[in-house]
Amino acid sequence: LIATGFLERVVDIVGGPFVLQDAAAVAPYGADALKQPHAPDLVALPGSTQEISSLATLCDELRVPMVVRGAGTGYTGGAVPIRGGIVLSLERLNQILEIDPVNLLARVQPNVITGQLQDAVERVGLFYPPDPASLQQSSIGGNVAECAGGPRAFKYGTTKRYVLALEAVLPTGEIVHTGSKAVKNVVGYDLTQLLVGSEGTLAIITEIILRLVPKPPAQRTVRAAFSSIEAAVTAVTNLIQLRVVPAAIELVDQHSLDALRAHSGTSLAPEGAAAALIVEVDGSKKAADEELDLVDQACRAAGGVDVQRAVTDADRDAIWQLRRELSPALKRIASIKLNNDVVVPRGRVPQLFELVARLRQESRLPIACFGHAGDGNIHVNIMVPEAERARLDDAMNRARAAERQLFEGVVALEGSISGEHGIGFTKAPYLGLELSPSEIALMKRVKAAFDPHGILNPGKIFPDGQAG
Amino acid sequence: LIATGFLERVVDIVGGPFVLQDAAAVAPYGADALKQPHAPDLVALPGSTQEISSLATLCDELRVPMVVRGAGTGYTGGAVPIRGGIVLSLERLNQILEIDPVNLLARVQPNVITGQLQDAVERVGLFYPPDPASLQQSSIGGNVAECAGGPRAFKYGTTKRYVLALEAVLPTGEIVHTGSKAVKNVVGYDLTQLLVGSEGTLAIITEIILRLVPKPPAQRTVRAAFSSIEAAVTAVTNLIQLRVVPAAIELVDQHSLDALRAHSGTSLAPEGAAAALIVEVDGSKKAADEELDLVDQACRAAGGVDVQRAVTDADRDAIWQLRRELSPALKRIASIKLNNDVVVPRGRVPQLFELVARLRQESRLPIACFGHAGDGNIHVNIMVPEAERARLDDAMNRARAAERQLFEGVVALEGSISGEHGIGFTKAPYLGLELSPSEIALMKRVKAAFDPHGILNPGKIFPDGQAG
Repeated sequence: LIATGFLERVVDIVGGPFVLQDAAAVAPYGADALKQPHAPDLVALPGSTQEISSLATLCDELRVPMVVRGAGTGYTGGAVPIRGGIVLSLERLNQILEIDPVNLLARVQPNVITGQLQDAVERVGLFYPPDPASLQQSSIGGNVAECAGGPRAFKYGTTKRYVLALEAVLPTGEIVHTGSKAVKNVVGYDLTQLLVGSEGTLAIITEIILRLVPKPPAQRTVRAAFSSIEAAVTAVTNLIQLRVVPAAIELVDQHSLDALRAHSGTSLAPEGAAAALIVEVDGSKKAADEELDLVDQACRAAGGVDVQRAVTDADRDAIWQLRRELSPALKRIASIKLNNDVVVPRGRVPQLFELVARLRQESRLPIACFGHAGDGNIHVNIMVPEAERARLDDAMNRARAAERQLFEGVVALEGSISGEHGIGFTKAPYLGLELSPSEIALMKRVKAAFDPHGILNPGKIFPDGQAG
Repeated sequence: LIATGFLERVVDIVGGPFVLQDAAAVAPYGADALKQPHAPDLVALPGSTQEISSLATLCDELRVPMVVRGAGTGYTGGAVPIRGGIVLSLERLNQILEIDPVNLLARVQPNVITGQLQDAVERVGLFYPPDPASLQQSSIGGNVAECAGGPRAFKYGTTKRYVLALEAVLPTGEIVHTGSKAVKNVVGYDLTQLLVGSEGTLAIITEIILRLVPKPPAQRTVRAAFSSIEAAVTAVTNLIQLRVVPAAIELVDQHSLDALRAHSGTSLAPEGAAAALIVEVDGSKKAADEELDLVDQACRAAGGVDVQRAVTDADRDAIWQLRRELSPALKRIASIKLNNDVVVPRGRVPQLFELVARLRQESRLPIACFGHAGDGNIHVNIMVPEAERARLDDAMNRARAAERQLFEGVVALEGSISGEHGIGFTKAPYLGLELSPSEIALMKRVKAAFDPHGILNPGKIFPDGQAG
């Protein structure tokens, strides 16, 4: 795959200590959270935008596949070099370059860990809202490449809302800047937003300017139990009618609640509850307290029981800690888990749950759901438990069939097959369920406008694995 | 320009009554608010997406320039057919198709007037925040094409934040859909955001799905006068330190205040004040009242005087009515006015005003500024008064020179030459001040991915008037 002399030229660019080539060293750079690894031929750890530009020019000239790697926490294989080639790990680009409290912005390198950025800006009274569950592991560059979400997206939006400007290297080696430090900018096409969520297929993001907001002075959290999914969704509708815009509205189904109880000895609702809601409001102390009352009222009016308010940080942390334990709790039941992140218009969440109930029956597999009810973005975990190990192929086929039906169902509900995780290579075969041939062809032409030789993260997003 | 048989084929597609060809009929379709018109050869008023698709296929085949027209309220000539050809006026596509209070969205045709959409959604307790000054005249499709802003953008963001999905016709005739009714969608590239602000050069937007939010129950407004621009900006900084996020923060300079006084007999600050701020907060009644106190405090702490609170709708309307009178007031001084909408990082607004003071002196022309201080987005009106009519060429040269220096200055301040109005053809020569040749070349390749023959709105955005 890799032409003679390539290694030497890579070493010339980044320096010997920053090139990995033996199998044991490169193997970890072939995997992400999906756990379907493919080792790269070579790994480079560039230390600057200029080095990345030189590497891109070289790879473009020699047609070597090039895959950019952040923290490797993606669920769809976006960072996996499935066609081999070179992985560019951005781990050395991990500095917060600037936090500007006057202009409410931060300038960062891509491999800053999102949680560390949040801590740093909160220390000066600012706030970076996007909060993917992986925030203590994932990098801000990866968050931008995937357009990461999280619970607070209901009020605050996803990563895209906070990206003002990017420095990026095109696969052909040119260094470009998109956007500016100005919060409004309509000069030419919005390439910033095009790069956000492009899954490392259009350009290599080397610097990011983020918009920040003042940190809300107070947060209040409510959790409530419901006897049906419908009742929980009614509570959300009630809230909106009361004109409350919570920071987060999380929904957890019975299967997830039970798994959490088995894992942690406690759960987010009493045994037998069909659903739990976690609602967080924020703002000034007075405003948050006022909205707390309204949330309580909205939950009770929808039949919510065991309504508990968390006002202290410790009480709030306890609730959110349990929320974050959901994924590990499900892993205890089944190490193999198709972790989907479908989205439907919010009011159609009950129909999504009806579909899941049918799939559960047909597939004879446990399916546990939780997620961002305010956004209609539900993580549907189709699990293959250890008991199925004896007939694993059959179980995997049933799981895949359920997944396809899930995707077809959300598209029929005018939703989307992915709200947060992206397409990567695992969902690429399903792109045509949501997009027409004309739309896919248009996206391929956009891809070619950035990457004429198709060297950057090949085999991702597009159903036939071909960008051109 | 237009091949034999073209007219007949257009008539076949949209029907005779919906084709205009005589000079008097087509002339109004050649102008927008910039008032530098160029008449089209033909105007078609298509009644459906399918008709638009057929027209595009025809124009692409015959290489006829095609310019889409909404309400014609743009300031940069975006809707002007400077190369002739056919104007597609979307005036018949003016229906609100759906307002969905459960899923918080609206589905609309492009020529719905923005203010009418706002009224319709507010009647059911919802809110569409973007509020360009032209909202009673401009169409939502034009707002999307330009990414319109307005005072409320500080808290609520510009049009782009509310566009979930689009139906659009490519210049080659294909009908595509971008995004979905789901509020989160990371399936493939974000073509929705790419089309927002693309100034009618990439595709013809035929249907729009907008995200709505619950209508804030209460609004409160403060206006305050300051003895310097710096003091007004300090008040804004104080507000942010108090963690208040107002819906709007508008700044008006002394030149604008004086013009308003001459025009309306009253103004937004007492005579001699160097600046006025209008700050609006919203939320629950309690939260709005609480923030009203903080705004008052922030203004006084910065030396604000004549601080007036508006709590009733009538008082608020009176303030905003005066704000909207600013543009007509300036027109009284000078019918020729270079109306710029530059943006700088918010904290650099005082530096922008220093630059403007220098330009005022050098150009010997009146320059009045007002705009969205929270966003650093200031409308800088370089005026050529009637007194200069005798030496108009000289005055226009001085105005153009001042404009160029303004653009160079905002780029040096890490801002942008346009925050709301777009590039059109008036600012196209200046694109290279903000974007590098690589960046412009990349945008041209994106343009070609949508419009291979360059028939859609030719001569806009790009400095050499060439997209290919």
